[in-house]
Amino acid sequence: MARGAYVGRFQPFHKGHLMALEWILEREREVVLVIGSAQYSHTWENPFTLGERLEMIWRVLKARGILDRVIPIGVPDTDRQHNLWVQVVLTMAPKFERVYSNDPMTRRLFRERGFEVLSIPFFDRERYCATLIREKIARGEEWEDLVPAEVVEVLKSIGGIDRIRELYGRREARRT
Amino acid sequence: MARGAYVGRFQPFHKGHLMALEWILEREREVVLVIGSAQYSHTWENPFTLGERLEMIWRVLKARGILDRVIPIGVPDTDRQHNLWVQVVLTMAPKFERVYSNDPMTRRLFRERGFEVLSIPFFDRERYCATLIREKIARGEEWEDLVPAEVVEVLKSIGGIDRIRELYGRREARRT
Amino acid sequence: MARGAYVGRFQPFHKGHLMALEWILEREREVVLVIGSAQYSHTWENPFTLGERLEMIWRVLKARGILDRVIPIGVPDTDRQHNLWVQVVLTMAPKFERVYSNDPMTRRLFRERGFEVLSIPFFDRERYCATLIREKIARGEEWEDLVPAEVVEVLKSIGGIDRIRELYGRREARRT
Amino acid sequence: MARGAYVGRFQPFHKGHLMALEWILEREREVVLVIGSAQYSHTWENPFTLGERLEMIWRVLKARGILDRVIPIGVPDTDRQHNLWVQVVLTMAPKFERVYSNDPMTRRLFRERGFEVLSIPFFDRERYCATLIREKIARGEEWEDLVPAEVVEVLKSIGGIDRIRELYGRREARRT
Amino acid sequence: MARGAYVGRFQPFHKGHLMALEWILEREREVVLVIGSAQYSHTWENPFTLGERLEMIWRVLKARGILDRVIPIGVPDTDRQHNLWVQVVLTMAPKFERVYSNDPMTRRLFRERGFEVLSIPFFDRERYCATLIREKIARGEEWEDLVPAEVVEVLKSIGGIDRIRELYGRREARRT
Amino acid sequence: MARGAYVGRFQPFHKGHLMALEWILEREREVVLVIGSAQYSHTWENPFTLGERLEMIWRVLKARGILDRVIPIGVPDTDRQHNLWVQVVLTMAPKFERVYSNDPMTRRLFRERGFEVLSIPFFDRERYCATLIREKIARGEEWEDLVPAEVVEVLKSIGGIDRIRELYGRREARRT
Repeated sequence: MARGAYVGRFQPFHKGHLMALEWILEREREVVLVIGSAQYSHTWENPFTLGERLEMIWRVLKARGILDRVIPIGVPDTDRQHNLWVQVVLTMAPKFERVYSNDPMTRRLFRERGFEVLSIPFFDRERYCATLIREKIARGEEWEDLVPAEVVEVLKSIGGIDRIRELYGRREARRT
Repeated sequence: MARGAYVGRFQPFHKGHLMALEWILEREREVVLVIGSAQYSHTWENPFTLGERLEMIWRVLKARGILDRVIPIGVPDTDRQHNLWVQVVLTMAPKFERVYSNDPMTRRLFRERGFEVLSIPFFDRERYCATLIREKIARGEEWEDLVPAEVVEVLKSIGGIDRIRELYGRREARRT
Repeated sequence: MARGAYVGRFQPFHKGHLMALEWILEREREVVLVIGSAQYSHTWENPFTLGERLEMIWRVLKARGILDRVIPIGVPDTDRQHNLWVQVVLTMAPKFERVYSNDPMTRRLFRERGFEVLSIPFFDRERYCATLIREKIARGEEWEDLVPAEVVEVLKSIGGIDRIRELYGRREARRT
Repeated sequence: MARGAYVGRFQPFHKGHLMALEWILEREREVVLVIGSAQYSHTWENPFTLGERLEMIWRVLKARGILDRVIPIGVPDTDRQHNLWVQVVLTMAPKFERVYSNDPMTRRLFRERGFEVLSIPFFDRERYCATLIREKIARGEEWEDLVPAEVVEVLKSIGGIDRIRELYGRREARRT
Repeated sequence: MARGAYVGRFQPFHKGHLMALEWILEREREVVLVIGSAQYSHTWENPFTLGERLEMIWRVLKARGILDRVIPIGVPDTDRQHNLWVQVVLTMAPKFERVYSNDPMTRRLFRERGFEVLSIPFFDRERYCATLIREKIARGEEWEDLVPAEVVEVLKSIGGIDRIRELYGRREARRT
Repeated sequence: MARGAYVGRFQPFHKGHLMALEWILEREREVVLVIGSAQYSHTWENPFTLGERLEMIWRVLKARGILDRVIPIGVPDTDRQHNLWVQVVLTMAPKFERVYSNDPMTRRLFRERGFEVLSIPFFDRERYCATLIREKIARGEEWEDLVPAEVVEVLKSIGGIDRIRELYGRREARRT
């Protein structure tokens, strides 16, 4: 076996994620795509449910013809019980040998557990950033070219634009 | 969309499950394969972790070439808080319209929520029954022809025969 | 203040419960009616949700004109973490001074916490027993005169007879 | 049936809440009064336990003679697992058809579940605001005319003024 | 470092446990004494709270003068989420290298995690068995010579005899 | 018995904690050292696991020869369910009569439960403050003389300096 895990929240899954995934697929036979913070939804940081994110990602994988090399799974976060989180991933995920992540916490926790952890090159990070994309959606700016077409499709069909706009409004109101 | 959900614990995934899945695929464009009691493992009823079950199922789906029509996901049970369980499924699963299950509780809970629930014909139920297969494994009887080859492979690679034998011994000890 | 707490699961609330409640009301100015195991439903022991039980009880209290003396609340059980349960009750319930219960565990836990605990006389215990009433419902025997009319009404409106019958069937199947 | 649900945290229950409740009672036969964030207490946002809030509200309802039209219940929040919260309410509450709330999250979640959601007119919002009332209590300003007399009574009997003052002090200390 | 972990529920801590502990201390510099199922109490299997068990054990260790070589800690069980349990132990316990246990589940879980697991010789197992000791207590038979004097002392001071008797009665009632 | 409880998070255990502990030991026969927020780790506020903190504290107590007078235990926090927290402590801790703490919440909760609560004099608070010590560690400043030698030893052996530095970096990044 030669499998890597790619960890993210994918709120939503954008072209930067896709490029990273393709970059990993050049290095690994298969990839476990770990959709983190799986239990949350309807917050600014995590607007979409796990089911909605799986729908987006599964359609993208299908359209790219890589469903036979990528295994998407949802994993809840453990709030601040960080020392349990890696074990939760290992319990819920098919086996993998390496972890790809740029998040310092994910990197540290897997390294403390003895995993090899690799960095992912950033692909036009200014543009492909989930927070910025949500902000663009909220403000009515251009965003559709930043995510795969399948994501646009799902996001619209579930009323995602309205939801993000509302959550953005709440966040702004709280900041004032 | 025209999707059905097929709910089971798949401990392990056997040929009866596969025949049922194929029968549903004749009726639905896509199937969400809900792997229930996802949080448990190392018990007689639920010997395998979610990750191990996903590994078995994913390999079967890949070998059959149906990864583009079947979406496997894990869903925890909610102990006896049955009235929350359907909502947990709906939060974690991509959208589906119909439910296929012969389990009376699953059927009732989804029907109370307004879902159409359909029965699955049994395919040689005497032979293809997860409990019987685990008992055969524990007793050293023939079992390998009852599950897909990929399941045999994964089950052996994770020391599953030993684990089941041990759990069977504990159950027998308790019964005396 | 002079308040007592009356603890039960009320699956369903029957005439024995009502007689007990009236007996306590002769001794206390007000009663906190603690509906225990509040989180469970759709099991043989706890077929009804908290909301359904509250509906039954509230209508009975209203019909008897005792809503100004009885405060019904739901309290979850704490599985086997018994030493937390009394504190959960005290956090969720308006203040009370005495506890009325015949359940040995409830009695012990409140006494260990320093509460005065009183027994309730049984009112025709052979007939007014929730388990027996559920069994009668399941077997199609006479049961409607064993519960207040409001309970019959609610139970029927939510499909409670079917639900109990099904849960009874599952229990019987498991016993064989 | 013609029932509405009125959702709030009621920390504490003030005259604005009472006016809103009376306004809803003109439109509905009965109201389920959902006391949210039921599990929290002793924080600035949620100083009072569910039991203490129920005590305040029950006395107000009794004094107004509306106990036969208002059913108060406690419902925990689900932290950020927002997609489960409506189901938790539906499990714990007697049936209702409409929801009255001005909170955007509550409104969104119930609407996504298919409920009719109505706004409540604000009754002198500058004055009747729970946060402002807690701030007045903490600073030793006039507050007693902002809440029903029964709330003053309960709040004082449980040492609520001291508790709020202390929580306010902690909040101020953290802000500096 | 050269530390072993000794895992048990210690309901109550008896002379067989003490002999096992002393046997391990001949082989290890220090021992982490893992008090399992820490969250439960007031059940037949787990009558005593963690605090009560710690009190018994700490006094025994102090009387034997081995507090500088034995570190007692409480660890909750994870219900049937067995694949998380070892990680919970590792998070809550000071570091150790080896595990001493005769319990098949504990042995399997630690071995699957890569730990060396050793058996403990049984010391007059017929007599020194926590279940039998609880049964003797319940039936009013001789039991005091089966546990260290400090355990007798604590057990009596907390009303433990009454509690065990009551729990025994409940168990017997359920069996009939 | 004459026991006090001393409550803290001990992230890490420093000389100010040790002086406070010794001050309490002059007033009490024994002390239950309650290590709070036991479930968290790998955050800026709580960098160390319970096991790591226990290791530090146990070694300090051993070196000071006070293991026979101090009982260290871990207790999780209950998030914002403050009204349950004291009961959790009482369930997990050996019995004690008095509480020593300067934390307003801890003081209030134990006083509301009827405990005598005493203040601890501050011992050079400017220097002996866990947050400041973590900041010094992160910035590469002098910190080793602020904690007992055993704490330095454990902290280094587990890679604690790196971990704190990383968590500090994350906190700073978020503040900008």
